[in-house]
Amino acid sequence: MKPRAAAPAIRPPPVPSSPARSLADSYGRVRAASERLVAPLSAEDCQAQSMPDASPAKWHLAHVSWFFETFVLERFEPDHRPFDERFRVLFNSYYHGVGAQHPRAERGLVTRPGLVEVLRYRAQIDERVLALLHSAAADGAELRALVTLGLQHEQQHQELLLTDIKHLLSRHPAHPAYARRWPIAAVQPEALRWFAYGASLFDLGHDPAADGAFGFDNETPRHRVWLDAFELASRPVSHGEYRAFIEDGGYLRPELWLSLGWDWVQAGRRRAPLYWQRLGERWHSHTLQGLVEIDDRTPVCHLSYFEADAYARWAGARLPTEAEWERAARALHGPQRGANFADGGVFHPLPNADAVSDEPVQMLGDVWEWTASSYAPYPGYRVAAGAVGEYNGKFMCNQFVLRGGSCATPVGHVRASYRNFFAPEAQWQFSGLRLARDRRD
Amino acid sequence: MKPRAAAPAIRPPPVPSSPARSLADSYGRVRAASERLVAPLSAEDCQAQSMPDASPAKWHLAHVSWFFETFVLERFEPDHRPFDERFRVLFNSYYHGVGAQHPRAERGLVTRPGLVEVLRYRAQIDERVLALLHSAAADGAELRALVTLGLQHEQQHQELLLTDIKHLLSRHPAHPAYARRWPIAAVQPEALRWFAYGASLFDLGHDPAADGAFGFDNETPRHRVWLDAFELASRPVSHGEYRAFIEDGGYLRPELWLSLGWDWVQAGRRRAPLYWQRLGERWHSHTLQGLVEIDDRTPVCHLSYFEADAYARWAGARLPTEAEWERAARALHGPQRGANFADGGVFHPLPNADAVSDEPVQMLGDVWEWTASSYAPYPGYRVAAGAVGEYNGKFMCNQFVLRGGSCATPVGHVRASYRNFFAPEAQWQFSGLRLARDRRD
Amino acid sequence: MKPRAAAPAIRPPPVPSSPARSLADSYGRVRAASERLVAPLSAEDCQAQSMPDASPAKWHLAHVSWFFETFVLERFEPDHRPFDERFRVLFNSYYHGVGAQHPRAERGLVTRPGLVEVLRYRAQIDERVLALLHSAAADGAELRALVTLGLQHEQQHQELLLTDIKHLLSRHPAHPAYARRWPIAAVQPEALRWFAYGASLFDLGHDPAADGAFGFDNETPRHRVWLDAFELASRPVSHGEYRAFIEDGGYLRPELWLSLGWDWVQAGRRRAPLYWQRLGERWHSHTLQGLVEIDDRTPVCHLSYFEADAYARWAGARLPTEAEWERAARALHGPQRGANFADGGVFHPLPNADAVSDEPVQMLGDVWEWTASSYAPYPGYRVAAGAVGEYNGKFMCNQFVLRGGSCATPVGHVRASYRNFFAPEAQWQFSGLRLARDRRD
Amino acid sequence: MKPRAAAPAIRPPPVPSSPARSLADSYGRVRAASERLVAPLSAEDCQAQSMPDASPAKWHLAHVSWFFETFVLERFEPDHRPFDERFRVLFNSYYHGVGAQHPRAERGLVTRPGLVEVLRYRAQIDERVLALLHSAAADGAELRALVTLGLQHEQQHQELLLTDIKHLLSRHPAHPAYARRWPIAAVQPEALRWFAYGASLFDLGHDPAADGAFGFDNETPRHRVWLDAFELASRPVSHGEYRAFIEDGGYLRPELWLSLGWDWVQAGRRRAPLYWQRLGERWHSHTLQGLVEIDDRTPVCHLSYFEADAYARWAGARLPTEAEWERAARALHGPQRGANFADGGVFHPLPNADAVSDEPVQMLGDVWEWTASSYAPYPGYRVAAGAVGEYNGKFMCNQFVLRGGSCATPVGHVRASYRNFFAPEAQWQFSGLRLARDRRD
Repeated sequence: MKPRAAAPAIRPPPVPSSPARSLADSYGRVRAASERLVAPLSAEDCQAQSMPDASPAKWHLAHVSWFFETFVLERFEPDHRPFDERFRVLFNSYYHGVGAQHPRAERGLVTRPGLVEVLRYRAQIDERVLALLHSAAADGAELRALVTLGLQHEQQHQELLLTDIKHLLSRHPAHPAYARRWPIAAVQPEALRWFAYGASLFDLGHDPAADGAFGFDNETPRHRVWLDAFELASRPVSHGEYRAFIEDGGYLRPELWLSLGWDWVQAGRRRAPLYWQRLGERWHSHTLQGLVEIDDRTPVCHLSYFEADAYARWAGARLPTEAEWERAARALHGPQRGANFADGGVFHPLPNADAVSDEPVQMLGDVWEWTASSYAPYPGYRVAAGAVGEYNGKFMCNQFVLRGGSCATPVGHVRASYRNFFAPEAQWQFSGLRLARDRRD
Repeated sequence: MKPRAAAPAIRPPPVPSSPARSLADSYGRVRAASERLVAPLSAEDCQAQSMPDASPAKWHLAHVSWFFETFVLERFEPDHRPFDERFRVLFNSYYHGVGAQHPRAERGLVTRPGLVEVLRYRAQIDERVLALLHSAAADGAELRALVTLGLQHEQQHQELLLTDIKHLLSRHPAHPAYARRWPIAAVQPEALRWFAYGASLFDLGHDPAADGAFGFDNETPRHRVWLDAFELASRPVSHGEYRAFIEDGGYLRPELWLSLGWDWVQAGRRRAPLYWQRLGERWHSHTLQGLVEIDDRTPVCHLSYFEADAYARWAGARLPTEAEWERAARALHGPQRGANFADGGVFHPLPNADAVSDEPVQMLGDVWEWTASSYAPYPGYRVAAGAVGEYNGKFMCNQFVLRGGSCATPVGHVRASYRNFFAPEAQWQFSGLRLARDRRD
Repeated sequence: MKPRAAAPAIRPPPVPSSPARSLADSYGRVRAASERLVAPLSAEDCQAQSMPDASPAKWHLAHVSWFFETFVLERFEPDHRPFDERFRVLFNSYYHGVGAQHPRAERGLVTRPGLVEVLRYRAQIDERVLALLHSAAADGAELRALVTLGLQHEQQHQELLLTDIKHLLSRHPAHPAYARRWPIAAVQPEALRWFAYGASLFDLGHDPAADGAFGFDNETPRHRVWLDAFELASRPVSHGEYRAFIEDGGYLRPELWLSLGWDWVQAGRRRAPLYWQRLGERWHSHTLQGLVEIDDRTPVCHLSYFEADAYARWAGARLPTEAEWERAARALHGPQRGANFADGGVFHPLPNADAVSDEPVQMLGDVWEWTASSYAPYPGYRVAAGAVGEYNGKFMCNQFVLRGGSCATPVGHVRASYRNFFAPEAQWQFSGLRLARDRRD
Repeated sequence: MKPRAAAPAIRPPPVPSSPARSLADSYGRVRAASERLVAPLSAEDCQAQSMPDASPAKWHLAHVSWFFETFVLERFEPDHRPFDERFRVLFNSYYHGVGAQHPRAERGLVTRPGLVEVLRYRAQIDERVLALLHSAAADGAELRALVTLGLQHEQQHQELLLTDIKHLLSRHPAHPAYARRWPIAAVQPEALRWFAYGASLFDLGHDPAADGAFGFDNETPRHRVWLDAFELASRPVSHGEYRAFIEDGGYLRPELWLSLGWDWVQAGRRRAPLYWQRLGERWHSHTLQGLVEIDDRTPVCHLSYFEADAYARWAGARLPTEAEWERAARALHGPQRGANFADGGVFHPLPNADAVSDEPVQMLGDVWEWTASSYAPYPGYRVAAGAVGEYNGKFMCNQFVLRGGSCATPVGHVRASYRNFFAPEAQWQFSGLRLARDRRD
């Protein structure tokens, strides 16, 4: 992706390019990042669970440590003894292969261990994993693969921790801010343009040469697909464009919606995306910086698949398939310098400050982009052996793929082949959209 | 599909090949078939609605007539006056473009008009449609297309009428039979074999030359897809094979199930497919012929997608994609002579009586076959203009494609490109599966 | 109760006073009345069940026959054989002592037997019960008591059949009428006056000398209660008075409601009683005579306990206790000549045509009157032995007592000691209220 | 109540008789008691809400302070400024007269203010209330009445805090203890005996001479009731007696249950009271001291009304009415010395250590006793003016009265006329029962 000329007032500082780091270095860096995320939160903030889909921040901190304990320490420590054997059930999310799980909807009722004890748990796990990584065992490919998976897993939970806290704070009538208020954005995004791509056979899926060594199993195997010609929009849909959809009766016109989407609109009496509220004449939105007036120039987010799909239909376009998206992403030239990831500390999508670009912008960062593709196994997909095989495959039903990462994603975590997935009614992620359309010849 | 040597005792009589018929002839034949289906039913049977997903038989009879009245007569009759203007809402299923709809879950509460009045409604609609078809208007392509669509629509509802009545009668403790008891099946199906298909670019979708002139919009446009090599099973999975899955703890092992599927098993305390019940030592099943002992030799049906998927995983295989299925179906040689469709009057899947075949058997008829494919628009898919555009496209979310028709499908209604679709938890259709697997080289 | 001068245009014809009748005569008369009630209904009307609380008319016809078969014929026929042994479960309402019951919410799915078969069932039961009543067994007190109970039971179901059909027809958008439209009421009710009653010890409960030989077990034993002085309104609250409550924001003011009542208002977004709908400027109501404009002069009905209680609070009064109501009812002078019961065929509460009365009017007939009394056992209450003991006692929880009968009650069925009972949210009975207040000294 | 000879090993220390205290002293003592109750709890423990019926401990601490701020300080402080104006909504429970309320089911999501801030809130409220109480305003009857009401209110919430924490900790698989384990009870309760009471007119309700000056409005006015002769059991039902009911199939026999109770048993697949679990051969129970084996000698608790009623029926007895209970309580001779209230720190019902008594024992303390009486207004009951009028009256529907206090009630809080009330399915209070029966002459 072509570098964006950072607009200092509104963009996060550029992320320094990663030097080669040892696995132990990466481990320390990722683990510390999780703890930095809870620094602005009280023990109470870390305890509450605002809905079954969300988890308490404390649970996230513990669960990612459980992952290392269960899948790394249990297996590789010569004389393994658990930190607390009850944690095996308490902090197991959904791994039937590991045994029972505490009921998901009751994570917020687990008041013990408290936050302090969970931090102590983290410290001990860190000590023990690092000991392993400095031992002879660290040469083993399986250990390294599992630690790497654990770090990627922890980064995913860093994003969930942010979106879950955002949801929790939204239930408070005062809309407390998680972070400081950002400066007012001053950049007007470029007008939407279309980029064309010809028909072709395309190799879809994780390519270590281009994407880096690590990829989740759901990105594999790389496989051939036929793609018809298509066009892709230069940037994500903005809040202003989405507001026009609302004002044009978007939530009142069944012909714009999938049937399930229309039921969802009616049942919830929905008239705007999650977190929007009308105050007098103007739309505001709950953000991680508190309740703020909506800035038309920023990418729209917190859309369900239903809303993204309805908007695209209204706009005379459609959502891209994930293959189309990945093809376009692979064709980008530049690095992702200046992209808006969690590390920038803004935690909100921003308008793009680039001058007119010769390729799509903001494909990574800012907002996850809903695709038209159901989350399904790639041809030849094999689930990993053992309990870690429950990581991805069993969720391949009634979910849609999102691509590209968001302003809550840790920098360096996403890539062109990365597949995120959520149910079509999910709104609490930073989910937006980018339009596509069939090639007009 | 190669002809099957009909085993007279257990197979329905062969359906005579269709002579070329005029549209008016087809109209008369399809409409009469609907009325034959309710002949064994009382006014009360036709009134009741056993669940929101199912509709009363009387509603089916009226709704398909409403379709002709609304989409054909309203448009083409020079001086149109409705049979009863209140029917416009009462019998509208889900066409927002036509106006309001009576709530789906309350169709069983519409006691007026009664069955007799609905049959009178049908008679008048028939008279008026046939008058149009014998007038000059009958030369118009749009009229012919809409009447043809109406007839295909009515055939779909004939199948739903049967599956809905089956569900209704299953709620009665005496399990009343809809039709006479069939003779006991005496044929052992061949052992399952695998047929191999090489990698290729394949043209997926409706091909008038091969499939006949009519196809639903969701079968179009025909488009190119890349297919990796695969293998397909020679026949559907049988009741006996599925029983082995149950006896191997299939419903007790989370590792065999999709996550949503496992939730569904747990929430419903499920241990067998819909309609099965254990009486003493033996499994029985509610059928349209009453409660009967399960015959291991017949194809298993009334599976949800979750069950079909779990069975396939247990069997070390997978479901085929719809492209794989269609590719194999297009390669069949023979006609569908002897296939088990609704017209045979058995209304239950039967074992295949063929000698060993050199290609898959029973791809049409007997049981709908779940595929691994989410129901999604084909590339370039365009929804038809107007309210009939609500026929298919808006349901393309959280449903899976089934292929091939069933023992409740009217003969001549399905084809290689035909896409049926249901939510993954749906069980009340005659839904089974055929295994596929990646090509072992 | 003082006789009312019948206003021919709006009151039903007077019911002739009952001559002494033999039990067999009563049996024939009550049974015939049930069948007259379904005469205006089709087989489909008799099949549908509009909510779990309501039952199909066909079920009512069968269940009351099941009562005679199970509690009379099984016990007294020398060589009893059931009409159809499956009916024992199908038409058992809630008598665990008799065995299993078909699930209440699925009564509308029992399409077999059909209406014709149920009428045949009735005919055979009639023949057999009458044979018993003409045999030597008819001298036995237990037989006579059970037949009498069965007839009272059937009369209760006659009222339920009417209220259930009213509810069913209300779900039809055309609001079909069950009976002919009545003439417009022309009588203005007298202004509400108060009658005073002094403090006293009062004997509450069934008094054979005053109430007739029959009483349900829940009316016994007669027992002493202390009553403080109170006042009772001369007549039920009218539609016009209730409309004033609505217009005064009655449904918008939490201070007028019980806490559960306010929750019920909010959850259901209620703004008026059941069956009311606003058409343009005016309130209409679904009745057994179709949708009609509300007549302010008629007693209000289809109120929940919550609404009756809130209205009373708004009016600066309260509901009477059942002891207060019964005390006042026992003090009435005249017979119930001209009262508005089901036999009059109006099926709607009417204004009272009396000149100014020296005692409360309309205490029997027109509308059931909610009392402030929870439905509880009288001191010393004993449940009858055997399954008929399930008739009343087990429902004594979370229900409130209503007194006086309604326009859907068979004439002669109610008496001063009669206790009806429904949950506080129930609205589909002809339930209204009469105000009471503490004595102002 | 006759003094019980305290068995030191198992009974809490006797509570010293209250010296006359000033209102300010009482205020300080009650407020401090609340804070002592949360001493064993972490910030996380105080945050979580385990079900909509329960509230977080932090919420209790804040809400009782809100009560003083809203009803006392707002009214009597000359220049009132709120501690935090947002608390007015956040900590309003159900007083519509005060304005909006934070949704009850989301109290656990209010993470801000945290526990520390709530304690600061309490400190400031204390300072300000005490300033008022030391000012001239303290002579006013209304101020004194409202402060007194606020203290009684706070004591009620002290009990709820304990029962809510008990429920929360029960959701934790480790069943953490709130308090230290008590010594094993060593006393066998006396065999159950019956005490007889003759028929009479009885004055029911609060009697300042006997009950002390304070009573809630729902205990008034004192009024006359007629009571038939009855008998009352000498002590509450024990765990051992209740276990016999279970072992006799109590949860499997519909004839023992109210109809709603049987539905409740079936829907919840209940086989024992709340908190019981079977470990191997023996029943255990979650207590505030952790999971312990059930001691047959202790009074049974955590029964719903349905269970209490079913047990009584099984035992050939019934529940007393609240008038019967109060009559017997008024006839007791001695003080409540040695009774088991919250101040003893046991938080669990205990067997009675008295030698054979000549009157019923344990009528106060140990367990709340379900009565057969629906919670209804006493004749002549008047709701207090203003928002405090919402305290009691609006809950008089679908609740049953409990009498006598429990081991979680603050000493001195209950009296003979005290009316507690809960819905019949509520189990999480220390609710047990004492048998009654009609007088056998």
